[in-house]
Amino acid sequence: MIRSLEKYFSPQSRSLLIAAPNDDAALWRGDRFVVATTDSMVEDIDFRLDWHGFDFRLLGRRLVSINLSDLAGMGAEPRHALISLCLRASMRVKDLERLYLGIAEQAQRFGCTIAGGDMSETHGPITLTASAIGRVASAARVLKREGARPGWKIAVTGMLGGAAAGLRLLEAGRPPRTRIERGWVEALLDPQPQVAAGKALIQAGVRVGGDISDGLYREIQRLVEPSGVGATIDIDALPLARGLDAKEWRLGAQDSEDFELICAGPGSRLASAQAALTRSGTRLTVVGQIDREPGIRLRDAGRLVRLSKAGYEHFR
Amino acid sequence: MIRSLEKYFSPQSRSLLIAAPNDDAALWRGDRFVVATTDSMVEDIDFRLDWHGFDFRLLGRRLVSINLSDLAGMGAEPRHALISLCLRASMRVKDLERLYLGIAEQAQRFGCTIAGGDMSETHGPITLTASAIGRVASAARVLKREGARPGWKIAVTGMLGGAAAGLRLLEAGRPPRTRIERGWVEALLDPQPQVAAGKALIQAGVRVGGDISDGLYREIQRLVEPSGVGATIDIDALPLARGLDAKEWRLGAQDSEDFELICAGPGSRLASAQAALTRSGTRLTVVGQIDREPGIRLRDAGRLVRLSKAGYEHFR
Repeated sequence: MIRSLEKYFSPQSRSLLIAAPNDDAALWRGDRFVVATTDSMVEDIDFRLDWHGFDFRLLGRRLVSINLSDLAGMGAEPRHALISLCLRASMRVKDLERLYLGIAEQAQRFGCTIAGGDMSETHGPITLTASAIGRVASAARVLKREGARPGWKIAVTGMLGGAAAGLRLLEAGRPPRTRIERGWVEALLDPQPQVAAGKALIQAGVRVGGDISDGLYREIQRLVEPSGVGATIDIDALPLARGLDAKEWRLGAQDSEDFELICAGPGSRLASAQAALTRSGTRLTVVGQIDREPGIRLRDAGRLVRLSKAGYEHFR
Repeated sequence: MIRSLEKYFSPQSRSLLIAAPNDDAALWRGDRFVVATTDSMVEDIDFRLDWHGFDFRLLGRRLVSINLSDLAGMGAEPRHALISLCLRASMRVKDLERLYLGIAEQAQRFGCTIAGGDMSETHGPITLTASAIGRVASAARVLKREGARPGWKIAVTGMLGGAAAGLRLLEAGRPPRTRIERGWVEALLDPQPQVAAGKALIQAGVRVGGDISDGLYREIQRLVEPSGVGATIDIDALPLARGLDAKEWRLGAQDSEDFELICAGPGSRLASAQAALTRSGTRLTVVGQIDREPGIRLRDAGRLVRLSKAGYEHFR
């Protein structure tokens, strides 16, 4: 079975000196500074097979994307991925092929080899894990959570809340009916890791940031807590996904798995990052600033508002 | 929760430039030739919580061991591991702590940092995945499946069949009663990756080999097929685990997850590997030879015998 699926992985694997699965492990020529991460998706927690329009090919793409998003959040360039699939024996070969196709095409799109994999049987939910391995030019040219300083601006790439709005639709059992609704569902099912944006931020001299896969609010917490600072966020400024009402800003601030990047830096540096990103078609929007006072303040037309829930857990 | 468990990982993580989970990914100084692998364990497929003497600490150790065994099978030195745990929300904190402790202590034992991790909820079987990343000195100093030549000897480290005998006991619901039976169960639940043996084989000039996690017969197939050769195995020569009867040789030839190494090479080279390994307390036993004729022949006191089943699937 694994051998019959190798064809999907071959184009990306040429840069490997030895490729699994024939051998116990893959062998490649290493890079000087390595960035690595791992992330899983679990059926009925992260996705449901009965979602309208569910497709194993998109699921495979998403497995790669969520891992590459972590590399993007460090400003790293993807190099290799390892894939571990725990599948039910009853899975149709056609579905397995689409899963592999999705994994392979998304890895290839970002110049990432599929260096190795493992397939196990499960009697329970489909559980997919990938590890992504990338590189940065030096230990200093990287986005870190720590280092934000009072007076710096906070900015995010792309649009927020689309994935949460898509999830709301699918969980209500509703197919997307409009172009806008299809856009929301796409943001959820087929997110694109902001690899180029991460590199552009590094290029512009930004050094504090990460990805927003756990929701904006939670990620801002991660950005301020290690440095003992705080933040004020302007709700008016949040770049909400197309079709979302301003009153629905919470969709963009909590729980949304948008896989965009967040960063903090001096205003001038963010402005030059903004200029570079705009040229490549990516929005970078200032949404607030770093304060000396710890805690996160959400400001809505001058008034302070609260989030009822920090919003960093999976839906359940 | 994850932060409270960080203490288990700190000693190994000092060699990292940036450690997850605070950041999106880990950062480390890379090696020139990198070897990488991934492997999962699924509840009720690879282990059962109701096995006599089941312990989450041993399970954590085993998760690291099965991955390091793949590195050992390449002759590589472990460097980093990424851990992804899919756990039920009902899991007791005490069990989670023992799982982490086991992961941390086994990684530390083999000089491997825990570079990053991910924890997800599942409504189904516990599913644990690790990726292991190691290094070799050059692309030529590595054990590969390909390259076996007619006339070469085939050898295995350690003893075979213990893990299968332990599995037979536990699946029958029987606690191990004797020292010998406890040894079998230990071979199953707490295997030790043959990292030092892999490096010793490389040092002795051996270049063809791998680990035997899928059973001896299946691994010999992998050793002969890529080179278009065959093999003859002497059943009398199989180093069966202590307490196994010679008639039970099938336990050592199929299905047993012994996590030993197999290798092939000219007799003189295997003899010098044997001498080096014996000095460090590891047995290396010649069990057969590579033939020009494809296929695998099992020879029992001069007669050819067959295995009813190739023996490379998980128990079910």
